[in-house]
Amino acid sequence: MTEQHLSRRRLLGTAGAAGAAGLAAGAGGGFMGAAVAQDDVTALATVGSTAVAFHGRHQAGITTPMQARGHLVAFDLAPGTGRTGAAALLRRWSRTAERLAAGRSADGTTDAARDAGPASLTVTFGFGRTFFDRTGLADRRPTALDPLPDFSSDALDAGRSNGDLWLQIGADDPLVAFDALRALQKQTGDSARVRWQMNGFNRTPGATARPMTTRNLMGQVDGTNNPKPGEKDFDRRIFVPPGGDPAWMAHGSYAVVRRIRMLLDDWDELPAPEQEKVIGRRKQDGAPLSGGHETTPVDLDRRDAAGRLLVPANAHARVSAPETNGGAAMLRRPFSFHDGLREDGAPDAGLLFVCWQSDPLTGFVPVQRKLDRGDALSRFIRHEASALFAVPGGAAPGEYVGQRLLES
Amino acid sequence: MTEQHLSRRRLLGTAGAAGAAGLAAGAGGGFMGAAVAQDDVTALATVGSTAVAFHGRHQAGITTPMQARGHLVAFDLAPGTGRTGAAALLRRWSRTAERLAAGRSADGTTDAARDAGPASLTVTFGFGRTFFDRTGLADRRPTALDPLPDFSSDALDAGRSNGDLWLQIGADDPLVAFDALRALQKQTGDSARVRWQMNGFNRTPGATARPMTTRNLMGQVDGTNNPKPGEKDFDRRIFVPPGGDPAWMAHGSYAVVRRIRMLLDDWDELPAPEQEKVIGRRKQDGAPLSGGHETTPVDLDRRDAAGRLLVPANAHARVSAPETNGGAAMLRRPFSFHDGLREDGAPDAGLLFVCWQSDPLTGFVPVQRKLDRGDALSRFIRHEASALFAVPGGAAPGEYVGQRLLES
Repeated sequence: MTEQHLSRRRLLGTAGAAGAAGLAAGAGGGFMGAAVAQDDVTALATVGSTAVAFHGRHQAGITTPMQARGHLVAFDLAPGTGRTGAAALLRRWSRTAERLAAGRSADGTTDAARDAGPASLTVTFGFGRTFFDRTGLADRRPTALDPLPDFSSDALDAGRSNGDLWLQIGADDPLVAFDALRALQKQTGDSARVRWQMNGFNRTPGATARPMTTRNLMGQVDGTNNPKPGEKDFDRRIFVPPGGDPAWMAHGSYAVVRRIRMLLDDWDELPAPEQEKVIGRRKQDGAPLSGGHETTPVDLDRRDAAGRLLVPANAHARVSAPETNGGAAMLRRPFSFHDGLREDGAPDAGLLFVCWQSDPLTGFVPVQRKLDRGDALSRFIRHEASALFAVPGGAAPGEYVGQRLLES
Repeated sequence: MTEQHLSRRRLLGTAGAAGAAGLAAGAGGGFMGAAVAQDDVTALATVGSTAVAFHGRHQAGITTPMQARGHLVAFDLAPGTGRTGAAALLRRWSRTAERLAAGRSADGTTDAARDAGPASLTVTFGFGRTFFDRTGLADRRPTALDPLPDFSSDALDAGRSNGDLWLQIGADDPLVAFDALRALQKQTGDSARVRWQMNGFNRTPGATARPMTTRNLMGQVDGTNNPKPGEKDFDRRIFVPPGGDPAWMAHGSYAVVRRIRMLLDDWDELPAPEQEKVIGRRKQDGAPLSGGHETTPVDLDRRDAAGRLLVPANAHARVSAPETNGGAAMLRRPFSFHDGLREDGAPDAGLLFVCWQSDPLTGFVPVQRKLDRGDALSRFIRHEASALFAVPGGAAPGEYVGQRLLES
């Protein structure tokens, strides 16, 4: 770890992620009494000063606690930008991301031109299926990048899907994130052009006592059932093991990105008890309808006195549960989005779903197949864009991200 | 003040606003050393728990420190919604805003369904020129709502301009702000429909040590020269005095709203020293080019050894200075916006400019007239939408906002 300031919030986040749920167990209850007592030694100033290491075994932005602001942007290489040009771009991008993540400016000066520190900035780089043909590297393309299957409920916009290269930018301050987006986009010069770009957000640090889960725009607690770093199978499920195929993906992961618009007007018309049956969890605290509190495992078999399943047969929590999907698991790390009003007057808002797994065929695909057939939530959401990227392992000092693909 | 938790950050903000600049004077320098030392007793948890009083002499959201997230939304009354329907809507809106600002849910329960506290939520209500004809109140329309003059550089989209009613929603957490937007929009029922809606943001609390100024997306420090509450002429400049005309606007203010897109690609091509000449201030710390630090008054007459004005003749800071506009002053309280990419590939980003004054004819209008003719910044910005609203004084307990207009 080379974090400049290891804040208590960050420690809490890491501890929570490592499964030490006890630390955060008092997080429920009303905000009025709980907030000050709970977080009294975490200084507000750590929001700006916290740095996330750019170098590491894995890229930053995968197990990093969710940030308040995010930009997802996909690029297509310009005609004529081959392997050499792509390598040069990844080298420039890595250098810029390293500087910005340390709180320096993009040109390397120590002058923090925008006053804030790095604000937990991360930049995560991925390669799309089309990247490999354009760069003459088709023989190194992972089979895991084979196109995702069609799902019956998809209504995908090709212009906002896929892409040769992908950046996920996250930071706890919107100006820091915007600055990084602009700086990285400038680095492309004539070698690539933006294919699509999406903006997202999560809760502001300090707004809520839940460090590792969030609320989505439907109001539901989200992320409770995520695999946690430190759990037995976490690495196997999320990261490609060394010695796998292809070799350059060691310690990498695959990201599935979906723009999922929520039909919030329809959703809000549904009474809260009906919403809870759709999800399978209580709205107030995220506890499963089978009982307990937020982190209590869902009991899929429990029934009420009349013999009805407490978690309904088509509840989202049941249909997506690892137990009903052969153990399939992924790390969901989304941002919410809100792009104003659509022409039909409905909010253009929902979830920029980003999930991470060592293999989409044992993560996203089986779960989404099942959701596509039987999820009660389906009538309230629309999958409008989709992408799949191979995200290589982190760069060692002196290396750039993707070097093992592009130069070995 | 009925604030539940009066945080040190909030106190600092108020002190800064009152002109006690000394408190914030150490805010410059690198973030690494300064941040922790400076803000060490402000608890992160105050971000969620801070409440801004709904009731008061003035509406909240005018002198309230800038919030991290904002929604601006304008409504047009439905045909048939007259004075009585409008009064009922304002009564519902006020009740909802009061509840949400206290951290309660829109339906009045104490259950904080989204975990956060009020996160400094404010809702500010305004009336547009067209409101008065539709409600039979033309005789109470302030002359200050007469249409703004045309400016030569305007390229206004009528569909995103003006409107019968306006809400400014601000909060330090995006879910709290979104929740408020949805709740208030639902209150309209069939009595009004959304005319336009815009989303904005400012810095995250704790990301930077500057509580009262911010950076815009051009990277410039913004807000330095704002009038400060407590200064001699502040109230006279910003708020309508009691006994003025019309009487119902006592303690109110007029808001000018402009969507100002920034031509960031052009701007970024300009070397930093040239950018500074356009603005008249240093990029790094906002100090005027005539010398000193951020809060040093601009010396418009100072020249270099060769006799050239240090703050150029067409610099934004000179053209907009009160000294060159007969003392005209307004309280600028903007949000940045970033709505992704335009079809031409440029960022759809800039400033949701909101300014406050007791009379637009002695605030925004003379300054904008001057800027329209001679501001070096003009070639880097586009005014794309414009609106003007009468924002009445705050509601006393038991009252709703606008009651003195609608019922007296």
